[in-house]
Amino acid sequence: MESLRFMSEEQVRALQGEFETPFFVYDQRTLEEHARRVLAFPSAFGLTGRYAMKALPNAAVLRVLSEAGLHVDASSGFEAERAMRAGIAPQRIQITAQELPRDLRALVERGVLFNACSLSQLSAYGELFPGSELSVRINPGRGSGHSNRTNVGGPSASFGIWHEHLDELLETAARHRLRVARMHTHIGSGSDPDKWVVCAKLSLAIAARLPDVTTLSLGGGFKVARMAREDATDLVAIGQKIVPEFEAFARNEGRKLHLEVEPGTYLVANAGALVCTVRDLVSTGAGGHRFIKLDSGMTEVLRPSMYGAQHPLVVVPRDAARESQRGEFLVAGHCCESGDILTPEAGNPEGLGPRELLEPRLGDALVIEGAGAYCASMASKNYNSFPECAEVLLTRSGEHRLIRRRQTLDQLLENEVLPD
Amino acid sequence: MESLRFMSEEQVRALQGEFETPFFVYDQRTLEEHARRVLAFPSAFGLTGRYAMKALPNAAVLRVLSEAGLHVDASSGFEAERAMRAGIAPQRIQITAQELPRDLRALVERGVLFNACSLSQLSAYGELFPGSELSVRINPGRGSGHSNRTNVGGPSASFGIWHEHLDELLETAARHRLRVARMHTHIGSGSDPDKWVVCAKLSLAIAARLPDVTTLSLGGGFKVARMAREDATDLVAIGQKIVPEFEAFARNEGRKLHLEVEPGTYLVANAGALVCTVRDLVSTGAGGHRFIKLDSGMTEVLRPSMYGAQHPLVVVPRDAARESQRGEFLVAGHCCESGDILTPEAGNPEGLGPRELLEPRLGDALVIEGAGAYCASMASKNYNSFPECAEVLLTRSGEHRLIRRRQTLDQLLENEVLPD
Repeated sequence: MESLRFMSEEQVRALQGEFETPFFVYDQRTLEEHARRVLAFPSAFGLTGRYAMKALPNAAVLRVLSEAGLHVDASSGFEAERAMRAGIAPQRIQITAQELPRDLRALVERGVLFNACSLSQLSAYGELFPGSELSVRINPGRGSGHSNRTNVGGPSASFGIWHEHLDELLETAARHRLRVARMHTHIGSGSDPDKWVVCAKLSLAIAARLPDVTTLSLGGGFKVARMAREDATDLVAIGQKIVPEFEAFARNEGRKLHLEVEPGTYLVANAGALVCTVRDLVSTGAGGHRFIKLDSGMTEVLRPSMYGAQHPLVVVPRDAARESQRGEFLVAGHCCESGDILTPEAGNPEGLGPRELLEPRLGDALVIEGAGAYCASMASKNYNSFPECAEVLLTRSGEHRLIRRRQTLDQLLENEVLPD
Repeated sequence: MESLRFMSEEQVRALQGEFETPFFVYDQRTLEEHARRVLAFPSAFGLTGRYAMKALPNAAVLRVLSEAGLHVDASSGFEAERAMRAGIAPQRIQITAQELPRDLRALVERGVLFNACSLSQLSAYGELFPGSELSVRINPGRGSGHSNRTNVGGPSASFGIWHEHLDELLETAARHRLRVARMHTHIGSGSDPDKWVVCAKLSLAIAARLPDVTTLSLGGGFKVARMAREDATDLVAIGQKIVPEFEAFARNEGRKLHLEVEPGTYLVANAGALVCTVRDLVSTGAGGHRFIKLDSGMTEVLRPSMYGAQHPLVVVPRDAARESQRGEFLVAGHCCESGDILTPEAGNPEGLGPRELLEPRLGDALVIEGAGAYCASMASKNYNSFPECAEVLLTRSGEHRLIRRRQTLDQLLENEVLPD
C-alpha cells in the first residue's frame, strides 16, 4: 500500500474539515528541496534551471520556485503574462510555444525571451525584431516517449525545427540578422543516464553547426517515482555523465556552453496531493469489483484516464481510532464518464487495475498523491459542470494558506449569453 | 476527404473574420432535426426524450433542445442548477449522478427528479424524502463499451445498482416507503438494433421485479457517424424492434411501460464544429511527417487525445479562389503536450493516422467537425493557460449569435490568491 508523502493523517483530517473537498495541497518544503536538487545538476560551465510552468502554473508555486532560484519556461504567451503577474522578472521567462503568441511583440518588448520552435516562428520573430538574439528549439531526430503518439522528439513529433533543416534555419536567421544564441532540445529522456548522454551528443553535434550558440538547453523529462515501486531519476548521475561531453565540445569548438535544464514534473509532481472525500461504495457482485467513488476524478486528475498514469491512493479514515481492513478496490471519479477511473491497469491504459487500499467508509478522505504535475493544469475542468477546486499551500513553517479559491457556479457560467 | 456539414466555406471565412479563433459553432436547424428524430423513436406506450446535457451544457443549446420537446438529464447537482438557470422547468430535469449532490434536498424541493445510482444514494434520498417516488439506475450486468475501462455496464462499470442487489434495493425502498416508479439502464448499445433488443430484454426482466415501475429508460449510446465512412444509428429500426418487447411485458405483467431514451452524442455531435486557424506548418523530413499546427487542440477537443476519436478535419482556404493541392498531414494541437494530436490512428489511439487534406497556408481555417458532443464540455480547459474559447449559435434563420464569450486571462486567474 502507498502512504502519505508530506502530510500527516491528522493534517489531512484538519484540512478536510476546513476546505470543501476536493482541493489540491502543495508543499513548499518539497518544492524547495526539488529546486535545490535541480540547481545542483552538475554542469561544466554553469547552469540555469528553468521551471516548465505548464506543469502547475499557480502564482504562489511560481513564486516559491522562482525565489528558490529557478527561471521559467512558458508554453504560451498567456503563461508568460501569468508568470509576470506572479512577480517573475520578464528576463527570467522564456516562451517555448507550439502556437506563436499573438502579442509576441509586446511580450518581448517587456523583456521576455523567445525560443523559436519552427522556421515560421523564427521568421516571424525576425520580422518583429531584426538584429536581435533568440533561442531555437531543434528536433534532433530521436525521441524516447512510450509510443508514437507521446514522443516529444523524432519524426513523429511536431516540436522544434527538424534537424535536417539547419540550412533553412541559418538562412532565415541571416536574412533577419538574428543571433541564435541559445539552442534547445527536449526529447523526454527519462531516468536513464545513458539516454541523456545520447541526447546530449546529438544536441552538441547540432550546436556545433550553429556558431552563435552559447547556451544549450537539454529540456526536461526527468522521470519521477510517483509510486513506491518506481525508480526516481538521479540527476547527479545524469549530470556527471554530461559534463565530459560539454568539456569535449569546448575543446573542439572553443565554446564553453552554458547548460539549461527545464523540468516540470520533477519539480512539482511529488510536491502535490489532491484531498478527496469518499462519497460512495458500490460493488458488482462476487465475480466483479468493489468501487470507491470520489467527489473528484478527471475534473482534477486526468492523467490516469488519458495516459493510464499510476498515482498513489491513500485512504485516511475520518475516525483516527478506527481499525480498518484492507481490500482490493477500483476507484472511480465523479463524472458520468466510463473513462473517469483512477485505477487503470499499470502498463495497460485500457484495462483496470484493482488497488489494495484500506477499506473506507463514506466521508473518509482519499488522498491522490503525486498530483502536483499536470493535474490542476491539465484536467477536464468543469466537465459535468463541476466547479474548479481550491488549491492550498503548506508553507515552510507548516502553516497552510489558500492560494486559489474554489470556483463558483456563477463564475463558471459568467460568459454565457442568453437572449432576453 | 471530409467536407463541411452545416456551414458553407463563405460562412466559415466570415465567422473567422468576426470572432477570434478557435470558436465553436452550433447549428440550431441540425439540433432541431436531431431532436425530431429522437422524439420519433417508436414506442409501444409513449416516449420521453431526455437530453444528456453533459455532452454540451451551453444554456442556448439547452433551450433549443428543450423547446424542441426534450427533457434533460443532469449528471450533477450543478448541471441541474445550470439547466434551471437556462429556463428549463425543474420537472423536466432528472439528476443521474455518480456523486450525490450536496444540495439534493433543495433541488428536489424545487421539483427536480432524482435517479438513484447506488444503494447509498437510494438510502440518502429516502432519508430526505420518505414516502416519495423516484427512479433507480440499474447495472444489468452487461456492457458494450470498447474495453473494460470504457464500459458503462457490466461488472467493470460502477454505474448503477448491480442487478444482483435488487433485494437490498427493495428493502431500502420499503424502509423509506419509496415508490420506485422509474427505472434506468444505460449500457451504451451503439448502432446495432439486436444489441438494443438484448438490453431491452435484460432491463424488462429487471423491471418485472420492481412492481411500481411505470417508466423504463434505456439510456442513450446511439452511435453517430462523425466520419463519412462511419454508419449512423437508425433509431426507427431500433425502436421498432423494441416495441414488441414492451407489448409482451404489458401482456405478461399488466403494466404499459412508458419509454425514455437519453441521448447526448446523437443530438449534438454533428450539430457542432470548431473553427480553428492554421498557425504553423512543420515537417520532419522525407521519412517523417508534415504537420499542421492549430490555435486549438486538447483545450477544446480532447476526445482524439483521450480515446483516439476520429473527427472530420476540413481546411478552408482564406482565399476562396486559391487552387490547393491535397496532401497527407498530421494535425497537432497548440499545447506543449505530445498527446495533443487531432489525428490519432483509427482503431489505435497510441498510433498516428496521417489524414488527406487540402494543403493549407498559415491563416487558413481548419474546421473540426463532429465537435458538438463532449468537446466544449470535456476538454482540458485552460491547459497551457489558454483561455476558454467562444461559442456561436447559427440560428434557424441563418443568423449567428454569440452564446458564450471568450474567457479573459483575468477571469482565468481571478481565484488565485497571492500574499501581499
